[in-house]
Amino acid sequence: MRKLWGGRFQGETDALIAQLNSSLPFDRRLWRQDIQGSIAHATMLGATGILPQEEAMKIVEGLKALEQELAEGRVALPEDAEDVHTAIESLLYERIGDVAGKLHTARSRNDQVTTDLRLYLRDVCDRLTEEIREFQQTLVALAEREIQTVLPGFTHLQHAQPISLAHHLLAYFWMLDRDRERLHDCRKRLNRLPLGAGALAGTSFPIDRRRVAELLGFDAVLPNSLDAVSDRDFAVEFLSAAAILGMHLSRLAEEIILWNSPEFGFVELDDSVTTGSSIMPQKKNPDVAELVRGKTGRLYGNLLALLTVLKGIPLAYNKDLQEDKELLFDTVDTLLLILPALRRTLQTARFRAERMEAVLEGDFSTATDLADYLARRGMPFREAHEIVGRIVRYCLEKGIKLEALDVATLKTFSPLFDSEVLALLTPRASMASRTSEGGTAPDAVRAQLAYAKQKLAEPH
Amino acid sequence: MRKLWGGRFQGETDALIAQLNSSLPFDRRLWRQDIQGSIAHATMLGATGILPQEEAMKIVEGLKALEQELAEGRVALPEDAEDVHTAIESLLYERIGDVAGKLHTARSRNDQVTTDLRLYLRDVCDRLTEEIREFQQTLVALAEREIQTVLPGFTHLQHAQPISLAHHLLAYFWMLDRDRERLHDCRKRLNRLPLGAGALAGTSFPIDRRRVAELLGFDAVLPNSLDAVSDRDFAVEFLSAAAILGMHLSRLAEEIILWNSPEFGFVELDDSVTTGSSIMPQKKNPDVAELVRGKTGRLYGNLLALLTVLKGIPLAYNKDLQEDKELLFDTVDTLLLILPALRRTLQTARFRAERMEAVLEGDFSTATDLADYLARRGMPFREAHEIVGRIVRYCLEKGIKLEALDVATLKTFSPLFDSEVLALLTPRASMASRTSEGGTAPDAVRAQLAYAKQKLAEPH
Amino acid sequence: MRKLWGGRFQGETDALIAQLNSSLPFDRRLWRQDIQGSIAHATMLGATGILPQEEAMKIVEGLKALEQELAEGRVALPEDAEDVHTAIESLLYERIGDVAGKLHTARSRNDQVTTDLRLYLRDVCDRLTEEIREFQQTLVALAEREIQTVLPGFTHLQHAQPISLAHHLLAYFWMLDRDRERLHDCRKRLNRLPLGAGALAGTSFPIDRRRVAELLGFDAVLPNSLDAVSDRDFAVEFLSAAAILGMHLSRLAEEIILWNSPEFGFVELDDSVTTGSSIMPQKKNPDVAELVRGKTGRLYGNLLALLTVLKGIPLAYNKDLQEDKELLFDTVDTLLLILPALRRTLQTARFRAERMEAVLEGDFSTATDLADYLARRGMPFREAHEIVGRIVRYCLEKGIKLEALDVATLKTFSPLFDSEVLALLTPRASMASRTSEGGTAPDAVRAQLAYAKQKLAEPH
Amino acid sequence: MRKLWGGRFQGETDALIAQLNSSLPFDRRLWRQDIQGSIAHATMLGATGILPQEEAMKIVEGLKALEQELAEGRVALPEDAEDVHTAIESLLYERIGDVAGKLHTARSRNDQVTTDLRLYLRDVCDRLTEEIREFQQTLVALAEREIQTVLPGFTHLQHAQPISLAHHLLAYFWMLDRDRERLHDCRKRLNRLPLGAGALAGTSFPIDRRRVAELLGFDAVLPNSLDAVSDRDFAVEFLSAAAILGMHLSRLAEEIILWNSPEFGFVELDDSVTTGSSIMPQKKNPDVAELVRGKTGRLYGNLLALLTVLKGIPLAYNKDLQEDKELLFDTVDTLLLILPALRRTLQTARFRAERMEAVLEGDFSTATDLADYLARRGMPFREAHEIVGRIVRYCLEKGIKLEALDVATLKTFSPLFDSEVLALLTPRASMASRTSEGGTAPDAVRAQLAYAKQKLAEPH
Repeated sequence: MRKLWGGRFQGETDALIAQLNSSLPFDRRLWRQDIQGSIAHATMLGATGILPQEEAMKIVEGLKALEQELAEGRVALPEDAEDVHTAIESLLYERIGDVAGKLHTARSRNDQVTTDLRLYLRDVCDRLTEEIREFQQTLVALAEREIQTVLPGFTHLQHAQPISLAHHLLAYFWMLDRDRERLHDCRKRLNRLPLGAGALAGTSFPIDRRRVAELLGFDAVLPNSLDAVSDRDFAVEFLSAAAILGMHLSRLAEEIILWNSPEFGFVELDDSVTTGSSIMPQKKNPDVAELVRGKTGRLYGNLLALLTVLKGIPLAYNKDLQEDKELLFDTVDTLLLILPALRRTLQTARFRAERMEAVLEGDFSTATDLADYLARRGMPFREAHEIVGRIVRYCLEKGIKLEALDVATLKTFSPLFDSEVLALLTPRASMASRTSEGGTAPDAVRAQLAYAKQKLAEPH
Repeated sequence: MRKLWGGRFQGETDALIAQLNSSLPFDRRLWRQDIQGSIAHATMLGATGILPQEEAMKIVEGLKALEQELAEGRVALPEDAEDVHTAIESLLYERIGDVAGKLHTARSRNDQVTTDLRLYLRDVCDRLTEEIREFQQTLVALAEREIQTVLPGFTHLQHAQPISLAHHLLAYFWMLDRDRERLHDCRKRLNRLPLGAGALAGTSFPIDRRRVAELLGFDAVLPNSLDAVSDRDFAVEFLSAAAILGMHLSRLAEEIILWNSPEFGFVELDDSVTTGSSIMPQKKNPDVAELVRGKTGRLYGNLLALLTVLKGIPLAYNKDLQEDKELLFDTVDTLLLILPALRRTLQTARFRAERMEAVLEGDFSTATDLADYLARRGMPFREAHEIVGRIVRYCLEKGIKLEALDVATLKTFSPLFDSEVLALLTPRASMASRTSEGGTAPDAVRAQLAYAKQKLAEPH
Repeated sequence: MRKLWGGRFQGETDALIAQLNSSLPFDRRLWRQDIQGSIAHATMLGATGILPQEEAMKIVEGLKALEQELAEGRVALPEDAEDVHTAIESLLYERIGDVAGKLHTARSRNDQVTTDLRLYLRDVCDRLTEEIREFQQTLVALAEREIQTVLPGFTHLQHAQPISLAHHLLAYFWMLDRDRERLHDCRKRLNRLPLGAGALAGTSFPIDRRRVAELLGFDAVLPNSLDAVSDRDFAVEFLSAAAILGMHLSRLAEEIILWNSPEFGFVELDDSVTTGSSIMPQKKNPDVAELVRGKTGRLYGNLLALLTVLKGIPLAYNKDLQEDKELLFDTVDTLLLILPALRRTLQTARFRAERMEAVLEGDFSTATDLADYLARRGMPFREAHEIVGRIVRYCLEKGIKLEALDVATLKTFSPLFDSEVLALLTPRASMASRTSEGGTAPDAVRAQLAYAKQKLAEPH
Repeated sequence: MRKLWGGRFQGETDALIAQLNSSLPFDRRLWRQDIQGSIAHATMLGATGILPQEEAMKIVEGLKALEQELAEGRVALPEDAEDVHTAIESLLYERIGDVAGKLHTARSRNDQVTTDLRLYLRDVCDRLTEEIREFQQTLVALAEREIQTVLPGFTHLQHAQPISLAHHLLAYFWMLDRDRERLHDCRKRLNRLPLGAGALAGTSFPIDRRRVAELLGFDAVLPNSLDAVSDRDFAVEFLSAAAILGMHLSRLAEEIILWNSPEFGFVELDDSVTTGSSIMPQKKNPDVAELVRGKTGRLYGNLLALLTVLKGIPLAYNKDLQEDKELLFDTVDTLLLILPALRRTLQTARFRAERMEAVLEGDFSTATDLADYLARRGMPFREAHEIVGRIVRYCLEKGIKLEALDVATLKTFSPLFDSEVLALLTPRASMASRTSEGGTAPDAVRAQLAYAKQKLAEPH
């Protein structure tokens, strides 16, 4: 394979070094973007007269034909090429001859590779946005079904207050909605054209970068050539957004694992998303959720790896930057695998409403309602809290449930109690009472659902 | 110190546990935000009739008086309080008596603390945005002075092509501009109100969250109470934006360290920003730049730490979340220290233009111009590259400089060369030729500067 | 405060830069080690005749007196000193006059600071080792009590096989034992003397480094001066060992949180190690365990931060290295807080054996015993596994428990079953059967306990 | 492909889930270790009578034959297997029929996979140790050649004191020596047998774990079955040792990049380890060093990823642990690529001694010698430092070199100066004077070299 450089060199590249140096094993996935970028570049070279129109057209047509052949698997990238750019160019030579050598006019691999990567990540952002949206739709569908399902809301993994299962599921809706927002912001920032920066300093050819930007759908032209070839912010920002998304999924996965334990028993997973044990015949394991939780590790690791790569390297392009791609690809592949897998896990899960409600019995999770009752009758909340705390202790010592107390007993703690209070002490009444905006009462959840659907319908 | 809980408990908290649990040593810096949030909450409690107006007013006035006292240092937060919320509330009790106990109506520390933190980070975003803007202004001022200063542009820390010092400095302008954009996006996402979420499920009191949002300047109300109390995305996103900003500064710091070495000699730092050695009397060390580079470590570490905290924890609030604050504060303090310190280092630096230009002599950094020359005369760039590679090898073997070649010699490599080519081979001519948008030619840099100033004038 | 350098400088250090540069706010905790190192250095200077004995003695006595004063709080480090070394030296000047200026003969702050840090970390390793040992003792004591307590062993958070609580607790014993080993290895590697390396190149004074090593209890002298001043491996290795230790504690904390949930109900925590809620009067939260789990974040973050600091910096000393200390101190303080706190949590916990055993009923966790039964009768284990899988499915469909099956039914699945099999299907029988080395049968656990006690008695 | 479980399941596994779950694409590299472990297990099953000897032998011979076939490429692992264990077992079935199903007696994949991984990492430790040793030998060979080569020693990237190039190179020898020590400690800790732990609780079969340990070369048997299946400390410890090793290489790489810059010019790299530019014909880039520096990112990332995976997961085995392998393999492959590549870069480099010595001229790097001179004549070092600082300032203002001062001028700064001092001010004299143990004087370096060779000859 002929290299894109070499005139100045005498010795051959050491084989081990060539292996270390080669990026084709991973950057080959950028072949479409590479051709796409080259077509735009060649078109512009023709339009500006930097190349004669007929030569530019010959290049463009050669690239289009090659794209077709590659897409159909009729030709393969040569394995011994240094990188995808060299591979594509060598195939172009085979097809159109020496004029292929004019494609690299006013262009360097430095501005080419980051253009390819931005085009790739732009597509990825769109695809991930769609995957997230589908996940959100699944949550909305489940929530619509489960508005009246009551379960303990937890803080510190202790029963806190009764809530609606729909409300719980929708919490993840909003996390994912911020993930979509972040991807949108990231896409906005990466959709700026580096091509035309040359190696680092721009070029003396009268190129038209705005035309290239337009052809490739970029919103703007990067205004500094040094920055254009050495910036990898967009990649870090993407990996950061991905890490946060992964963190959200890890929290949901953790809850699925917890809820699926015999002790919780809040959910039963479908056979199709679980696996067994090679030794214990009874096992049915929530592997998907565990793998999703575990894969948070690599999402965090990839982010930190790229930050490490970029720490303290001088301007402009340094070979260290080649490390960006494998990190990005691994994160992309991971997300595109775990998002649908976890969604399917949720979709096929059977939520056990009876069990969720059963564990609320005698769990004191309506104690706040009791304190609020006193506060509404004018007692400072702090004092009400103190009194209810004593009531809870009394019940624990006596071994009785809060909902089993009678008014007479309650009155011994405060004269403000009267018989109305008893109706407040059921989980459903408690849930229904939290009608504040964003609260868990069914009507509040319905309003939330309406807002959620509106967000889903918005463009990003 | 009276705790905000305890009625249910019999045993005393273990002293070591109390120490572990206490957040006052670090969350005390949120005292202003805590009072600010409480004033809005109490105002709303009065407006909605949840508290009688006169009680609400008494609380508001008590809080305002307390804010004044604290600001003037006339009173201190009690050291034995569990956290800043408890500390403030206990001071309020001292001032207005039992009605203080009504402030916590329809509120939990869970929604209170994240409200405080969002208010704090909102201010921080604004302050950092301003610091960055000032840094950008310094870069613009330097760039305006150094448009005609020529130095080698580097890739792989090898001389690549001659560039303008202004162009080099402006590369950092655009990095910082993206940092401002990211802070702006982060601020947008954190400026949503969690207050009113209660412990996790909303409240049965008829609160008006939109009113509170308005009073506190939030753009929106978080639509899910579980998410409101457990979300720390905004903190991760901030730490991520900070890590990227720190990475940019580490690259600039690295260049200052390199340029300040005797071998480079491109810059001389002012005595006021350097330090000496306890043993070597001649030393003058670029400590600021080294510390900036080193502090990238803690910025990355803080980001990873919070991501780790959040990995796999179930809904809703868990005490693990208390770990967010020290990480954030350390990152904020670091940035507010290194941004002005590095700016001052740049402002007082003496750039040694004569040295920068001297190292360009005989460095072959105009070789691309030679290849472009051939390409402009119709030779495929690949072939031109190959020929110039051979010319470079010829020069290296003969020990002569590229700019010392005569036309006759050049013609032996390609008949396309003629006498015009010689004028291209000076660094200044090379720099001046790169007139493409975003390139290093003086006019292109002037256009870039104009755009940079326009960006600085924009609101965010 | 007089600096240890300055003769060469004209301008004053900028106040902001001085603040950035100052390490006294955190390195002050090294004052004892700094004096200790200086005493050894001065003693050697006297012994080798580099300083006259009487001057060396004057310095040593001055240092000892100062150590006493500082220990008793009779004098404080001057706040305006650049670092702890400067602070100590200035106090020494006040006490013994100009001869104090001879202490820095043949020494630099570069070799001094890393000597101080190694001395400090050596003490920390010893103290942590002791803390871990006490934690292990707590586990041993609990395990001795709980050998016969049966609970479900989990994999994938599903019931796997019945195990002994003692066995479960001892799993953590061995994790901690490896932590002690790692600290021991780390201590071994850090206990090598850098002093005498000077600024970076050694010294022309006829120093005796082996004498200093002996005085300070170092095992060896670092053989390369450049490495001696720039190596921070020992700090990274310590932070790594600490991160792994923290990871172990996070796993134990997670289990305490799970077990303390109402759904599990395996453990009840003491009031003294839990806290309440400001809004929900019934809450009793496992804060210690949550904080321990959360603090894993900073332990990981500190490790990554130092690795980042060290990435790609050239030899020898760079100011970036000053960042090592705060990271180390934070990790040390964290571990010295969470180790005893979590130990106390365990010590005061009430394990609810009745609940643990109750959840084993009908959970199929003895299914493996059934398969092993068939395998012992000659059936290939794979086939036995398949058959028992079908038995489990049969039970699930019929809604009956495994232990409720009669022999006749079992025989319909395989003729190898006979009445002996029924005795295997109780949790206790299952637990008792796993007698392999390291298994959960009471006798195997007793053997394990004996080995554990033996390990505790070993020197490290 | 028949799974190792399934009797209990009704639904089919979802295809996407199966893909997520499958580990064969990466764990296939453990096939040798898997067979090795199975042979030992089967041998023990026969020896203890758990299986009839002839069956055990049939299994062992089947495994050996299979190993041979796989080694020779005559058979391939079935692509649709869930993991390498299933793949091997299915091939064994094809060869020896149903008796293959007895191999899994008294074994689970949980103890099997970590046994495989430990065997693999043990080999890796040995191989890496050898690679490091070869790197150290290269450094020793270079150092022997370069003892008399003088160059500026740097601190803060400023000239500090003249040193020997051999001394500089040997600094890396000692870093690598600690890396070997750490791998040795890691290997010691991982060389303990988990097999026999079963799924998590041990087994009721009368296995002989010590026999298996002996057959597989393990030093000990892990004493707790829960810990045995869930411990991944050894993997984290390995990744940590690898990250530190990578950090060392990143520092060396950084220096190669710096030294290879035209401004430094201390080294010229061979054509065989450099590459060119697609646009700039003159470029010769130190790609190997840059990639080594960049790959630090993934080494750090992999460490953090595994720490993240392990954070807060309960006992015993969880599927999250499957994430360990790709992280380990990536780190192993990276190290086995960059160690020889960087070594080759050093071996073929041409160090430019003349340039190194030239930059010492007039650089004040012998100023410490001047101060030491005064200190040796009885002046407190602090005062001597101050005086020499003033001499340096004097020279800078006058524009003269330190070595150009005459005695008369020196005497105006201190009467202690006399003519002997002038001989000290050359770089070579300065280097030669630092004779302390570990110092840069040629004799001290020779002693260091002797010690280095002794370390290389030691077993680990």
